[in-house]
Order: sequence, then structure tokens, then C-alpha cells
Amino acid sequence: MGSLNDIGVAAGINILSALGFLLAFAVLRIQPINDRVYFPKWYLKGTRSSPRHIGAALSKFVNADVSTYMRFLNWMPVALKMPEPELIEHAGLDSAVYVRIYLLGLKLFVPIAVLAFLVLVPVNWTSGTLEDEKSISYDEIDKLSISNIGTGSKRFWAHIAMAYVFTFWTFYVLYHEYKVITTMRLRFLANQKRRPDQFTVLVKNIPEDSDETVSEHVQHFFAVNHRDHYLSHQVVYNANTLASLVEKKTGLQNWLVYYENQHAKNPEKNPTIKTGLWGLWGEKVDAVEYYRTTIEELCKQEDEEREKVVSDPSAIMPAAFVSFKSQWGAAVCAQTQQTSNPTVWITEWAPEPRDVYWPNLAIPFVSLSVRRLIMTVALFFLTFFFMVPIALVQSLANLDDIERVLPFLKPIIQRNSLRSIIQGFLPGIALKLFLIILPTILRTMSKIEGHISLSGLDRRTASKYFLFLFVNVFLGSVITGTAFQQLDTFIHQSANKIPETIGESIPMKATFFITYIMVDGWSGIAAEVLRLKPLVMFHIKNTFLVRTDQDRDQAMDPGSLDFGSNEPRIQLYFLLGLVYAVVTPILLPFIIVFFSLAYLVFRHQIINVYNQQYESCAQFWPDVHRRIIIALIVSQILLLGLLSTQEAEKSTFALLPLPVLTIWFHYVCKGRFEPAYIKFPLQEAMVKDTLQRATDPTLNLRAYLKDAYVHPVFQGGDMYDLVAMDEEEKDPLLVATKRRSRMNTPVDSRLNSSSGTNEGEFSRLRP
Amino acid sequence: MGSLNDIGVAAGINILSALGFLLAFAVLRIQPINDRVYFPKWYLKGTRSSPRHIGAALSKFVNADVSTYMRFLNWMPVALKMPEPELIEHAGLDSAVYVRIYLLGLKLFVPIAVLAFLVLVPVNWTSGTLEDEKSISYDEIDKLSISNIGTGSKRFWAHIAMAYVFTFWTFYVLYHEYKVITTMRLRFLANQKRRPDQFTVLVKNIPEDSDETVSEHVQHFFAVNHRDHYLSHQVVYNANTLASLVEKKTGLQNWLVYYENQHAKNPEKNPTIKTGLWGLWGEKVDAVEYYRTTIEELCKQEDEEREKVVSDPSAIMPAAFVSFKSQWGAAVCAQTQQTSNPTVWITEWAPEPRDVYWPNLAIPFVSLSVRRLIMTVALFFLTFFFMVPIALVQSLANLDDIERVLPFLKPIIQRNSLRSIIQGFLPGIALKLFLIILPTILRTMSKIEGHISLSGLDRRTASKYFLFLFVNVFLGSVITGTAFQQLDTFIHQSANKIPETIGESIPMKATFFITYIMVDGWSGIAAEVLRLKPLVMFHIKNTFLVRTDQDRDQAMDPGSLDFGSNEPRIQLYFLLGLVYAVVTPILLPFIIVFFSLAYLVFRHQIINVYNQQYESCAQFWPDVHRRIIIALIVSQILLLGLLSTQEAEKSTFALLPLPVLTIWFHYVCKGRFEPAYIKFPLQEAMVKDTLQRATDPTLNLRAYLKDAYVHPVFQGGDMYDLVAMDEEEKDPLLVATKRRSRMNTPVDSRLNSSSGTNEGEFSRLRP
Repeated sequence: MGSLNDIGVAAGINILSALGFLLAFAVLRIQPINDRVYFPKWYLKGTRSSPRHIGAALSKFVNADVSTYMRFLNWMPVALKMPEPELIEHAGLDSAVYVRIYLLGLKLFVPIAVLAFLVLVPVNWTSGTLEDEKSISYDEIDKLSISNIGTGSKRFWAHIAMAYVFTFWTFYVLYHEYKVITTMRLRFLANQKRRPDQFTVLVKNIPEDSDETVSEHVQHFFAVNHRDHYLSHQVVYNANTLASLVEKKTGLQNWLVYYENQHAKNPEKNPTIKTGLWGLWGEKVDAVEYYRTTIEELCKQEDEEREKVVSDPSAIMPAAFVSFKSQWGAAVCAQTQQTSNPTVWITEWAPEPRDVYWPNLAIPFVSLSVRRLIMTVALFFLTFFFMVPIALVQSLANLDDIERVLPFLKPIIQRNSLRSIIQGFLPGIALKLFLIILPTILRTMSKIEGHISLSGLDRRTASKYFLFLFVNVFLGSVITGTAFQQLDTFIHQSANKIPETIGESIPMKATFFITYIMVDGWSGIAAEVLRLKPLVMFHIKNTFLVRTDQDRDQAMDPGSLDFGSNEPRIQLYFLLGLVYAVVTPILLPFIIVFFSLAYLVFRHQIINVYNQQYESCAQFWPDVHRRIIIALIVSQILLLGLLSTQEAEKSTFALLPLPVLTIWFHYVCKGRFEPAYIKFPLQEAMVKDTLQRATDPTLNLRAYLKDAYVHPVFQGGDMYDLVAMDEEEKDPLLVATKRRSRMNTPVDSRLNSSSGTNEGEFSRLRP
Repeated sequence: MGSLNDIGVAAGINILSALGFLLAFAVLRIQPINDRVYFPKWYLKGTRSSPRHIGAALSKFVNADVSTYMRFLNWMPVALKMPEPELIEHAGLDSAVYVRIYLLGLKLFVPIAVLAFLVLVPVNWTSGTLEDEKSISYDEIDKLSISNIGTGSKRFWAHIAMAYVFTFWTFYVLYHEYKVITTMRLRFLANQKRRPDQFTVLVKNIPEDSDETVSEHVQHFFAVNHRDHYLSHQVVYNANTLASLVEKKTGLQNWLVYYENQHAKNPEKNPTIKTGLWGLWGEKVDAVEYYRTTIEELCKQEDEEREKVVSDPSAIMPAAFVSFKSQWGAAVCAQTQQTSNPTVWITEWAPEPRDVYWPNLAIPFVSLSVRRLIMTVALFFLTFFFMVPIALVQSLANLDDIERVLPFLKPIIQRNSLRSIIQGFLPGIALKLFLIILPTILRTMSKIEGHISLSGLDRRTASKYFLFLFVNVFLGSVITGTAFQQLDTFIHQSANKIPETIGESIPMKATFFITYIMVDGWSGIAAEVLRLKPLVMFHIKNTFLVRTDQDRDQAMDPGSLDFGSNEPRIQLYFLLGLVYAVVTPILLPFIIVFFSLAYLVFRHQIINVYNQQYESCAQFWPDVHRRIIIALIVSQILLLGLLSTQEAEKSTFALLPLPVLTIWFHYVCKGRFEPAYIKFPLQEAMVKDTLQRATDPTLNLRAYLKDAYVHPVFQGGDMYDLVAMDEEEKDPLLVATKRRSRMNTPVDSRLNSSSGTNEGEFSRLRP
């Protein structure tokens, strides 16, 4: 265990670095040149225009107004000032509920910390066990922890009582929060404007019919079985080829605009390019002419492909979006079983159009279960054996081996200074690389599992990531050794020994976790607000690549709350807080600082920066709740294990009801609240239907829903782009406005807007 | 381990006793006097009339026709002859599917046994390990088992290959059977005549409304939220007091009829009774007069109570049966969530009227989850600590203690012969008593959990009983010791040691389980067909109590398939079969004999004897399926444990995919078939609605459903009884006919008919 001194030093370093980040942020954010990095949300909303167009040349880039520097920290109160209803309106319910997770951390741990410092710290401090046992080296911090209580002491009853108090307090806070968020979700759903997904159900696994096309089959089925409610439907096309053609064209179009601009600036010189690989060699041709013809060819290909997709029956997937005349009809269809075979005509609420993950719509039912089996097995191996391939890579990266295989590198490798640097870094690099791409791997695994919405993908990724963090960060730090070694230990240990082993080493790891919280929590969050990577990227793009306003908007990368990788990390703090609340309460203030800082920062970010790709109406809350419950149970079992090594048998039995109660509490909450996140109550649907009929009796719902669930490549905007391209490309600003506005409308899918953006960026990087 | 000789002796005894039972049955069943014991089903159907009314005096009681004795075993082919569709028509789908469980056992184990004898027995037999190790005493039977293979032998691969083959064969059989039974269920539902439960949904937890009564509240809610489909509703009354009054009256009415009959036989003498305790002392009064006045008083009380229940708002429970105009409307309401709070207005399909368990209809949601928590904890303690109270009782039953507490018993206890008998029996009696009342205890626990249908109670009881049998019979026999000692061992053993410990002792227990199968399976099933208890009870009643034809019908106790206690016992055989298929295949033929005999016997019983109290349309099949899957997984893990003690590490790894595959198979089946047992597809509902509208366009559905879900004490029949009692009691035969016919109609609840019957019996036993 580290000493108080060590912690002090670590705290100093981390407080300084966090303050440094915050200061840098405070200064950078008021520079006009960074405006699009720190306030992209407002640009997308259209309420903030580029500060470049006003004022003198210098003030375009640097803020010379001294008074604003005096108020450089005022973003903090501003971030807190926006009231929650406005926040929901501004950033969506998902974001508003996401920052409430941090608030929940504060609500949970502030009272627990107060109580722990009032009761447990004095109890631990006044017990003189560590002082008596002179042989063991101990530290001041240990005197505040449970380690200072002698084995078999009566003082453990204080800890047991506190474990009960903390558990019931957690129950109260969790139940209350679940209730509040469920109410928020229902109110949000009730107050929402008309949205296509409210009337639409996704039907998967439509069985084949030899006499009818998919479209006819769908129409007949629903016209018969939902006679009074069926309105229309939209079949799903397999348009992946077409989508890639559209992407390619967008990239080429940007290049065309670029060369046209260059030509306009310097009319004498016709810009030329080489047609070969990456433009490095090959025939020299006139650039504008080349791109114009290439795009024309692509347009023809696209038209052919579009024709093919629409006319070829095999391009129609056995899935469809079926729309109903009323929300009641849609709610009924989404919640019921359609035919006696539950594996065909599977209905579920359609995700909102932006949220659809199109490529997964055609996976058949049987393949789904096989995919899930394989991914479960893969996740197991990934979690417990991820060190194996990394160790392999590390051993391959051995310099002597490299020397033998690639003898021509010998002179370089033989240099001593370089050698030691490589030897020191290489093994670490493989691991770091793996950890960086881990969320992407997990997300790919979720994609393979076949979820059909982006929000679903994010939720599944979060579950997988939490398992990984729990096994490899939490358990891996407590019991040093790889996950596989742990697994081996656990299998060969008796059931009651496992919590004992972990529980025993828990108090000794407090210092480590305190340092972890400061590095990952404090400095990490402060770095988050600085947005170092988007800042650098924006300026690189702005300097070298931005040619049009459209490009500048694309260079602006608002990012979004990455639920899949951020939420599991928060859960780790909940786990640490609950585990150490009874054992080493001194850890709690560090967690409270993390939650406060993170709450502040993320509230600021969702107000000014992030642009969510979809709105799932807080559908992730049951997952958040469940993982806190898991953390609570783990903390109880570890406390049980710890106490049972302290010769306090009676107290161990006194703790046994806790996990049972917690599991029961979980089921109570599940029954009470979870249906609100899966089903949609008929009463609410009926109320909304009646209201809408009264307020808008002449609405043509069929026309409203007509194009809502058309594959992005077929959507009006792109159709228009295609047909009217020649006129449009002369006026890039017009296109820019369109794109900007589309970025925030619900009818656009992320696949379309973001992939278009990325393609644009990538193609621009090619010379 | 027992020797082949021991098994031979045991087999001899059990075959003889089984044959004895079968012979006795063959003789007894053709005696006319026993006709109502062995063919009650046909009496209830009304297709068989009492053989007493025809022929000579002697032939009324004893069958003198010698030729029938020659054909005394022909019940066996007859039992098999009835084709399945007719069986379903005759006995209901529940019974038909129930006997298919035995058939499934045959389908599963006959091919497994053939394969095991062709492959595994030769492999085991030719391996000479046991012969080489002269020190260990072994037996012929061990040479056929896996014990004969030496540690680390390559021959284990044969067992591993067979484990895979058996697993996949089990998958195939289970999947196929699930499919067949789901089809049967759907066809049964589709072909059924109109039934009230097809149009009705049970609504629980109706929230309080200060302005409206429950009835008004229900009507308004459904008239608004199911505008086009709502038809009518029936509120639920708390009529438990009234029900007990009706029961009491029924008993007294029987006595009145009895004394009136006596008076009619012997008109000079007025029968008298004493009014005191159990008729043993007190004032002597005229019996007919006494019962007549008492019944009149009861009638008045009943009328008052009835008035009170109907008029008192607090007697109305917050539950209602809501009927819809179409099955489509009912299917929609049963499958959807009604309001944003999922704990109120909970809807589910109404059980058929006979199947409703009325007392549980008013349990509030919150109390439900507490009840389930308590019952889960109670089940845990019952399963693992049931020996504690029994040991206590046994120690209390110590004769010396009794002597001290009750000194006046001293002379009796001091007698040596008596003493030894009591000492020998007392401890066993407590355990036997406990095992006899165990199903009743488990059923009471299920009742406390708050299930609202009798079929649900049976299913939950079966789950609990299976857990008990698995822990206390299977594990308890393998690892000798009480369940609590096992639990203690398991907790203190490492995770990989547990299957090893059990797996290691599995082969040694084969002889024990063979004997168990013969005693419990062979003789037990043969005793079942003899119906010894109902036979004796019928003759006692017939001799001493039967006065009217109505009484004779009530004395006839057809019984029913007790799913709650029979099904878990079958599951034990599946477990034994799957566990020993690879380890000691010699056990399989014994199980096959059991399944064949049981199939024969139960098919005969459901054709001729049992009268089911409800029809759940095979809703129990997912449970049956799940428990066989559990047995399969247990068998795989135990084989894993067994092989890992045989120094065959590679083979252990080769077995690891089996449990994973099995769990996956379970989820595949669950997704594919289980919805058919929970939901009702809208397509089927629409088809039935359209058909019914076409075939019966003038049907007044409201009138048809009017009284379907009225509490039994309010039902037409009893109302009529009450009002027109004075006329009716003069003609008991008329009442008898009514009752008899009601016993089979769906509108009657079991609570009514059976409790009425019991009360009648009990009151008759009082002098």
C-alpha cells in the first residue's frame, strides 16, 4: 500500500494537470478561431454564425478583448444554469438523462461519504490493531480503513450496520431515479411532435410466397389482420452497392469543386492530375475535365444500379416498415404476435429513421441465434484470453527475431540507443493499440449479432465493455495476474474462497484505485473538455483542406456522447465507490470529485458540443440501473468474503440477506419500470391519437409517412442531388445549407450524412 | 456396489409384485361392483350406466362369466388402440400430451440404449482394468460400466463421441416433440368450440377512483382505450364467506335427505339426533325437523351475505373479467400494456372458468413480489434444511423424554416389546409423514405466491418439487448425506471439484438407482393402475354412506393426473437415463421398461378413469422441455467431472462445448416455440373471428358471456338450488342429474364442485 505521501504527490500532479487542461480550455474557447470546435452544436442549430465575418482581421482569429479573459471560468455556472426541460429540448432526452448518471453518482455517494466519515472513520481510527502489530509496516491511510480493526472484533458490527444503511440508501436513490427517468421518458414521448416512428412498426422475416411479391404479401397480410388500422408500408431494399456508389460520387464531387475553385482563382493554368495510384504516377490529364467525366460515368452507373435495385425482386429484403392509421394500431401491432410461427412476421417498434442500422435488416432468424452463440463464445475468449494474441505479438516484436527474419534491418537495430527505446516501447504498444481499438471490436461484434438500431448497438457494446472492464480492470487490479490466470484460480478454488481471496486484497488496493481515479477520472475528464483531438483536426483541415463553407461545416466534428464506451467507465466508478464505501471510506471523496467534475463538463459538452446521432428516449436506463445493481451485489459479496477472513462468523451470516434483498429489489424495479422502455401503453397512444385527430383533422398521414423509411440512398435529398447536380454544383453554398439543415432533422439517417462526410474527408486526403 | 445377483433378486421381487398388481387389477376391473372405480370417466361422460340395474342379483356384484377372465389382459391393447385425435377429444389435450411425455422417454432412450449396447458395452467389457487390479473387489456389472476403463485410456474417446451423439439425438427428439406439441396445441385451439375464455381477459390491479365504482371505472377505461372491441365485463367479488356458507348448507342438505329417506323406510319411527359436539351428547331432537330449520336459517344467512356482497363496495375486488366483441380484440388486450404504470391495469388471458383460483384474484402487485421473495427463501430452506425440524421431532419422540413429561404413560412405555417397536418406528414416521405431505406443502407455497389459475399452481408446484427431488433424491443418493451437508461441502469445494466429486461416485450408484427404478417405477406404476386407495374408499362409502344415486356418483372419485407431483418424478427418470447413458448403459433397459409400462398404464387411466379439473391446452410443455434440458446439462457436467478424474485432460476439453451448445439449443427452442404457449397470434384470432361471424351471424355474444365468469357461489345452478330448494330436495335424483352434468361442463369451477363434495363427505362422517 502506498503512503499518504504518495497519494499527496499523485493528487498534486493530477490536480495540476487537470487545472492545466481547464485553463487551456478556458483560454482556447474564447478565441474566435476555435469557435467551431467548442460550440459546434449552436452552428448546427443555426443560431450561431461564424465570427469570422465580423470585426478586424486579427480579431477574426484571436480574442483581444481583455475583459473576456477575466471571466474565463464562467462556462461552469453557465453549464449549470440551463434548466432541465430546456436541456431536453436543446440536446434531446438521451443526453439529458446521460448527465443524470453523474448526478446520480453524487446523490448516491455524498450522503454515503458523510455517514462513512462520521461513523466508520472514527471506528477504524480508534482501533489500535495496526499500532499493536509492530511487525507489519502500515501507513496512516490504513488506520482509516477496515484493516485497522482486529480479527474477531465487535467493531465489525458498525460496518455491517453501515452496509445495510448504504444498501437501503442505494435502493432508495436508484428507485427514485428510475421513477423520475421513467416519468421523463413518458412525458417526452407524450409531448413529442408527430414522428414517423410513432406510427410505424418494423416487420422482419416475412415468409416467402410463391404467388406474391414481398410488397403484395405485406399489404395483404396487414390489410387482413389489422383491418381497421393498416395504412401503408415500405419494403426494404438491399441497396448497399448503391450506397457505396453514392459515397464515391460525393467524394469526387468535392474534388471537382476544389479544382474548379483553383481554376477560378488562376484562370490561366488548368489544374492537372495523374490518374494512377494515389495520383503519384500515371497519365497527366486536365483535373476538372477528368472529374466531370468520371462523375458523369458514376451517375450512369448509379442510375443503372438504382433501376436494378428497384426492379430486381432479389434486391428486396424480407423486411418492411409498416405504417398504421393511428398510434394505437401501431402499438398493438408492435406488442403482439402475428402468426402461429413466432419466427416469421416478427414485429417491433421501428427505430426512428436516423437510428436504423440498414445492413442488419435482412438477417434471418436462424442465423441470428447462431450469430449470438458465436459472439457470446467470442466475448468469453476476448475477455479472458485477450492477453494471448498480444503476448504473441509482443514475442514476435522481439528485436532479435526481427533481425533474423529481416537481416537488412540489422544496422538500424544494432544501434544501442535505438535498441533500448524499441525494446522498452514495443511490448507496450501492442497492448495500447488493442485497448484503443477494443470499443471498435466490441461494436463490430454487436453488429454481427444483428441488432437493427444504432442505439441497440451502443447498448450491447456497453454491456460487453462493462464485462471487460470488470474482469480486466477491477478484478485484474485486485488480484494481479491476467484474466486467464484469475479464471484458473477461480475454477480451482472453492466457492466460499473466491470472495475471501478478492475481499482480502480489496483494502490493500485502495491507494492504487485512488491514483486510478485521479488519472482516469480527474485528468481524463479535464482533457475531455479541452477536445484536444477535434481541435487539432479542425485546424489541420481548416488550413489545408477547407475550400468551401460546406467543407468548413464538415471539418467541424461535434462528436457525440459515445454511450458504448463512456457509460461502462462510469459504472467502474460506481463499483469502486460501493465496494470501498464500507472498506476504505477515504476513497469516496475522490469519486465525488470525479462525479462533480464530470457532471459539469458533460453538461457543458452536451449544451455546446455534441450532436447526437439518434434519440432513443433514454432507452438505456434499464441497463444503467442493472449495472449499478450488479456493482452493489459485487460489493456485498466482497464484504462478506472480507469479513469471513476476520474470524467474524456471526457477522458474515448477518450480511447474507443483503444480496438476496438486492436481487429481489432488482426484480421489483424491473417489473415496475422496465415495461415503459419496451412497450408503449395503449392509453397513451389513444390519448395522442385523439389529440392529433382534434388538432389536425385534415392531415394526410399517408403522404407524411411516404418517404420516412426509404433507404437513405433513395431519399428525396439525394435523388434531387442526382438529378439537379449540374446546376447545384455551381453553387456549393446552397448544397451546404441543405446538408447543414439535414444534419439535424429526424428524417436523415446517420449512415447517409456521416459516411458522406467521412468519404469527403478521406478522398480529400488523396492527392 | 451391489452384485448382479442382488439386482436379479430385486428384479425378481419387483417383477413379481408388479405382476401381482396387474393380475389383481385384471381380475378386479371386470367385477361389476368395481365398475365405478375403474371406469368413472365413462360414467361422467354419461355413456356408461350402472351395471347393477341389469341381470341377476349375484351378477350385480361378481362377474361369473368365465370367458371374460380369459381375456383379462386385453385392457392393454385396448388402451393403445384409441387413436390420438379421439384421445384428445375424449380426455382433453392436457392428458393426451401428458402421456406423450412417457412416449418421449421411449423415443429418446430406445435408440440411445441400442447404440450404447452396440458401442459402449463392448468397449467397456473388453477393457480389462478391473481384472488387472485384483485388490479392488469388483462385480460383473462394473465390467459393463465406464469404471472398467483404465485412467488415461484412449477408449474414453468412444464415450466422448457417444456423449455427442446422445446429445444431438436428444436435441433432435426434443425439438421434434416441441414442434409436434405446439402444432397440436395450435390445432386444438383453432378447432375448439366457442369458449368464454377466448373472448375474455383478466384485468388485475384496477386503480382506485374516488368518483367511480370499480365497475364504472372498468367500463369507462375499456370503452375508451379499446373503443371498437370492448363488450362487457364482470367484476370479481370477495365471496369467501358466502362460499363457506354454501358449502355448509350442501352438507346439511345431504343429511336432511338421509334422514328423510330413513323416515320413509320406517315411517313409525322419527329419527332423532343429539345437537351437541359431534352428535355425542346434548339434547335429543327430531332429525328431519332439526335439519330443515337449520337449513332455513342458513338460507337466510346466505341471502343476507349475498345481499351484503353485492351491495357492499368493499367486497368488490380490484379485478375484473373483461370480454371483447372478437377474439382479435381480446388477443390485443391480453398482449399489450394498458397504461404508463405497468403495475396497474395488468391484463392477461383469463384462465378458463373452471381453472380460475378465485381467492388469489385480489392480491396487490407490491405484496406479490414480497410473497415471491419469501417463498423463494422458504423453498431454499425447505430443500436444504428440511431435515432439521424432522430431526427435532425425532429427538422429541424419544421415549425417555416422553416418559418424563407424561409420567402417566410410564406403565405402557415400560413394556419392552412395545418399547422396541415404538423406538424403531417413531423416527421413520416423522420423515414419511413429511414426504407424504410435501406436495401439499409445495402447493400451498405456490398458492401463497399468488398464481390465479389452478394450472399455474400445478406448474409452479412441479418446479419446486423437481428441485427438491433433484437435490434430495438424486444428489442425496449420489453423495450420501443430508442436503445441508452437501451444501456445506459444495461451498467449501472448488468449482471444478464439485462435478468431479459427484461424477466420481456416479458409476458406483448405478445398482442403487436400478433398484430405485424397479421399486418406484415398476411396482409403483403397477400399483397406480390398481387404484387401491380409491377402490377401498369407494367400497367403504358405498357400504356405509351411499344413500342416493347422487351420493354414489360423489363416492366415485375419478381423480386426475396430478401434474404437480407426477411430472417431476418422470423428470427424475429422464435425469437418470441421460446421466447413465454414457456411464453405465446397463441402467437404460430398466428405464425403458418403466416408460413402456407407465405409458400403457397412464393411457388406460386417462381413457377410463381420470377426469381433469381444467384444460390448459398443454401449457406445461415448456416446463417439461426445460427440465429435460436441465437434466441433459447436468449429465454433461457430471461426465466432464468423471472424465477429469480419469487423467484424460484432452477429453475433458472435448466435452466443454456440449453444455454451451445445450444452453444455446434451449434458447433456440424458447424463441421458436414458447410464444405459442404465452401469446395468441392475431392471425389465428382473425381467422376464428371471421369463421364465427360467417357460421353464426346472429349470436348474442353478450348473453353468452354474461354468467361465464361469475363467482361459483353466484352461479345460475346454485342460485336455482337456493330459490327452488324446497321443491328440489324432494327429488334428489333430479339434483343428482344436474350435478353430474355440471361436473363435466366448463362453466363449473372445481372449487365449487369438489369442495361441495368434500364437505358432503366430511359432514356425513359426523354421527
